[in-house]
Amino acid sequence: MYKVIFHLDDEGRVGVVYRGIMNLLHDMETEGEEVEVELLANSSGVKPFMKDKEENKEAIDLLLEKGVKIALCNNTLRVLYLTKKDFVHEATIVKSGVGELTRKQHEGWGYIKP
Amino acid sequence: MYKVIFHLDDEGRVGVVYRGIMNLLHDMETEGEEVEVELLANSSGVKPFMKDKEENKEAIDLLLEKGVKIALCNNTLRVLYLTKKDFVHEATIVKSGVGELTRKQHEGWGYIKP
Amino acid sequence: MYKVIFHLDDEGRVGVVYRGIMNLLHDMETEGEEVEVELLANSSGVKPFMKDKEENKEAIDLLLEKGVKIALCNNTLRVLYLTKKDFVHEATIVKSGVGELTRKQHEGWGYIKP
Repeated sequence: MYKVIFHLDDEGRVGVVYRGIMNLLHDMETEGEEVEVELLANSSGVKPFMKDKEENKEAIDLLLEKGVKIALCNNTLRVLYLTKKDFVHEATIVKSGVGELTRKQHEGWGYIKP
Repeated sequence: MYKVIFHLDDEGRVGVVYRGIMNLLHDMETEGEEVEVELLANSSGVKPFMKDKEENKEAIDLLLEKGVKIALCNNTLRVLYLTKKDFVHEATIVKSGVGELTRKQHEGWGYIKP
Repeated sequence: MYKVIFHLDDEGRVGVVYRGIMNLLHDMETEGEEVEVELLANSSGVKPFMKDKEENKEAIDLLLEKGVKIALCNNTLRVLYLTKKDFVHEATIVKSGVGELTRKQHEGWGYIKP
């Protein structure tokens, strides 16, 4: 079972990250391999996951349906005066984005920064 | 034996990646250490490896001569309507760039995103 | 004990890297976990650590006080005609930034590129 965490810290890169994850899932599926994927967003990278971003809803729903975990950095949320309720409710809030990246890699996950 | 994969997804960064790899090879060589290096290109990062980019030929030849593997993302090639024959023939085409990055890290390779 | 190396290769990103490290240290501390952090700077990423950058002194002192190791790429220093004495004296000079990133990951350190 492969495990990899994508790091998104720039809202302008959300499309690249989205396509990267979809390509990875397709690659693994056609090879008969399994992969666990997490998308960790901090800084402006959290913005595409706000509830009022209707234009991203379809893409986010597809990621969630495919089992991708979406994790948002709570330090970023505090700085932006936002809370969990401002984001799609399936998102997980982690204490810090960098802590999540550190812990996952310690557990053997790969890291991709598109 | 060290192993590391460089991730290039922006053609404007090819010089930084090239110099990074050359510096790494030199560092390891002078320390009497061995390293296996792969350059994985996706998105616009594949463009410097097109056959008609004469300005990059010398640098690419040097990388290949030093044993660096150049891997190009096939998803990117399809989106750009390009095929293997449009690129330097020593390049390897991988099913997906993100799949390659995930698999290599799973096998213990380091990751550098210049 | 977690171990992670932050890669800074753009002086414009020094604030993001600084805040990332401080957030990580705080996260780990409040969770009762230990972490070893290194900040590896190459390319223009070395500039904020020059002795004459008074505006960065307080932040750098705090990093050092918290036990963060600051490593600077000697290839970059040579290209910029700078030497160790131009930088804060607590900084460590490494033969190559990419070599340091490769060696640390080989030893099990995580990698974060903000």
